Amino acid sequence: MQEPTTAPLRQFASPADLVSTAADVLARLRAKAPRVHCITNSVAENFTANVLLALGAVPSMTLSPVEVGSFVSRADALLVNLGTFGRERSEATSIAVDTAVQGGLPWVLDPVFVDRAPSRAIYAQDLLFLRPTAMRLNAAEFAALAGVGDGPGDVRGYARERNIAIGLSGARDLIADGSRVASLTNGDPLMARVTAMGCAASAMVGACLAVEKDAFVATAAALLIAGVAGEMAAEKARGPGSFVAEILDALYSLDAGALTARSRVTLHE
Amino acid sequence: MQEPTTAPLRQFASPADLVSTAADVLARLRAKAPRVHCITNSVAENFTANVLLALGAVPSMTLSPVEVGSFVSRADALLVNLGTFGRERSEATSIAVDTAVQGGLPWVLDPVFVDRAPSRAIYAQDLLFLRPTAMRLNAAEFAALAGVGDGPGDVRGYARERNIAIGLSGARDLIADGSRVASLTNGDPLMARVTAMGCAASAMVGACLAVEKDAFVATAAALLIAGVAGEMAAEKARGPGSFVAEILDALYSLDAGALTARSRVTLHE
Amino acid sequence: MQEPTTAPLRQFASPADLVSTAADVLARLRAKAPRVHCITNSVAENFTANVLLALGAVPSMTLSPVEVGSFVSRADALLVNLGTFGRERSEATSIAVDTAVQGGLPWVLDPVFVDRAPSRAIYAQDLLFLRPTAMRLNAAEFAALAGVGDGPGDVRGYARERNIAIGLSGARDLIADGSRVASLTNGDPLMARVTAMGCAASAMVGACLAVEKDAFVATAAALLIAGVAGEMAAEKARGPGSFVAEILDALYSLDAGALTARSRVTLHE
Repeated sequence: MQEPTTAPLRQFASPADLVSTAADVLARLRAKAPRVHCITNSVAENFTANVLLALGAVPSMTLSPVEVGSFVSRADALLVNLGTFGRERSEATSIAVDTAVQGGLPWVLDPVFVDRAPSRAIYAQDLLFLRPTAMRLNAAEFAALAGVGDGPGDVRGYARERNIAIGLSGARDLIADGSRVASLTNGDPLMARVTAMGCAASAMVGACLAVEKDAFVATAAALLIAGVAGEMAAEKARGPGSFVAEILDALYSLDAGALTARSRVTLHE
Repeated sequence: MQEPTTAPLRQFASPADLVSTAADVLARLRAKAPRVHCITNSVAENFTANVLLALGAVPSMTLSPVEVGSFVSRADALLVNLGTFGRERSEATSIAVDTAVQGGLPWVLDPVFVDRAPSRAIYAQDLLFLRPTAMRLNAAEFAALAGVGDGPGDVRGYARERNIAIGLSGARDLIADGSRVASLTNGDPLMARVTAMGCAASAMVGACLAVEKDAFVATAAALLIAGVAGEMAAEKARGPGSFVAEILDALYSLDAGALTARSRVTLHE
Repeated sequence: MQEPTTAPLRQFASPADLVSTAADVLARLRAKAPRVHCITNSVAENFTANVLLALGAVPSMTLSPVEVGSFVSRADALLVNLGTFGRERSEATSIAVDTAVQGGLPWVLDPVFVDRAPSRAIYAQDLLFLRPTAMRLNAAEFAALAGVGDGPGDVRGYARERNIAIGLSGARDLIADGSRVASLTNGDPLMARVTAMGCAASAMVGACLAVEKDAFVATAAALLIAGVAGEMAAEKARGPGSFVAEILDALYSLDAGALTARSRVTLHE
């Protein structure tokens, strides 16, 4: 079983301190090319795989119960996304999460659309008891699961209670664990006009967790990279179609300089 | 149960009259951002979701029997596409259609490839007995289902018999219900070189039905929007790859002016 | 049952001889527009369909056991890809391969990720006993299946033993059957940064087999077309996102002149 992290948590002196750590996560990700096994919805599979490849990670996506354990045990991180939930995905998820937990592999939960169906919310709550390393979601999903507000203190409180890192996406992204909260305002409204953008961001959290043990840092790095690439892409795009190509190109060419220059990060008390 | 519409059907005095109504449907679609639940084939899911988002609608796509009813009951329209038909999709379809029919929700049938397998044609006929609001398909599929020619009178006759609006896609699109027939010649041959273009057009019919009760008008508006966006995209594209991005950009930025200026609509007696 | 080809195998006098035959395969493919039924992974379905359409072939992708036989019996070639392997895909694969074998239809095996899970390697070996016409794969997959090196002699030896044409993708592609080996060095590293590129190349092998009985020639033609289109696309792309659009555009507009001028083919003894 995975044990709670007992190492003292790094405190960031300034936003620049967190941003420079995020740039380092990106560099390690490109050097290591970690394998990320993704149990995700069928709408998101292709785009998620392309986002991971553009970033420098290696995706795999099988759902077959006879082999998903083999794939996860050879991976560096796991993503569990509920997007188009079905029987085969449930079975694959059980095996994959068991394999990750047994092997101490970091895993991310993306509880897509838990606000739309009670059965989905119940299932997400069950998965939360298995202690994902991080969870990325939007405000409607957070409200349905956590039943609290989405201010920095609320999100940190929930993260502490569940012993998890939270990445809450929106016009302002909030990243929290039990003791730290940061927000960032990078990104662009076009990101909401392309399907699976949030799902892909969750996969990016997985890729960052594969090279960074501090889940707060990994989650912040992933959402910062996504937001900066998103606004770089929006500057060139003429609509959501060209945006899809541009954000993949931006993720591929993103470097520490652009990440640092464009970051708009706030640390909260 | 859904009752036959008994309101008197609007008669259009001129093509311009129909086009201006279609422009109004587009404006309402953007204002309302309707939810369209899509049971569609896995090839088409991503592109269909992106088309709906570009247009201003909100897609969902789950097939899970335990939750599809919840999603459909919170949606404004339903799409049923047979593209990669399988067991889970059949079960999801039964639940989704029952939910739509009970709730008086408009739904569109896209009987993809009914000309390729007898089992699929039988299944589509069964679904037709559940009275979809509209059906979008191509000439080969229409011939396999309807067993009549595809001239304006034939299509109107079939639409009257089945009490349905028909959108028949081709170099010339035909739109009919039991009393009205229109044709339009917008579009571009590149649309046939991109997978799921017809599937996405069917989803657009669903989005228009969510904001327009007259199924003939909604179907005509959807095919006109698709055709005009398609020809705008083709003017900028260098092949089917760039066309995919361009048509999403065109759907995103399309306005009443372009729709009106470019429309090539004929009303048939 | 399919019988071993007994016609004398064509020997190529020079690389130019093979390239000009490949250009002829492309011309026939565009003239015939063959139907290729694809059992492929859900990540790859959309891109594979678009690659086939850009090239001039007509894809279908259903997995339903009740209808996959009908689709395959009306198709000109079959692709079996193990990418996101599951129960429904196994059942569909059995029916599809039986239908292809009974009907003498050419079929391609793409044993994706056989190096990642033992169950998948066993399944691929079972499929190899059903004698696919060709197999396209990468070096890690070839090592896991064949257990020999990946030099020209090794690959030819394995191809002879299994009576199959092999397309081994990499920085240098190797194409072999029991008596002939060629290599080609077209392509671009960006091809490895887009998901499903190999899967789509396997589908292209299927499309070429539909118009060319000599499996060595069909496999070489498909990999040459993919490699040349890939390097044409890379010259215009700014990253993997724009590359996806560019390679579809390149496949759509590729002609014998560009294929010939850009080909880098070697014939091995």
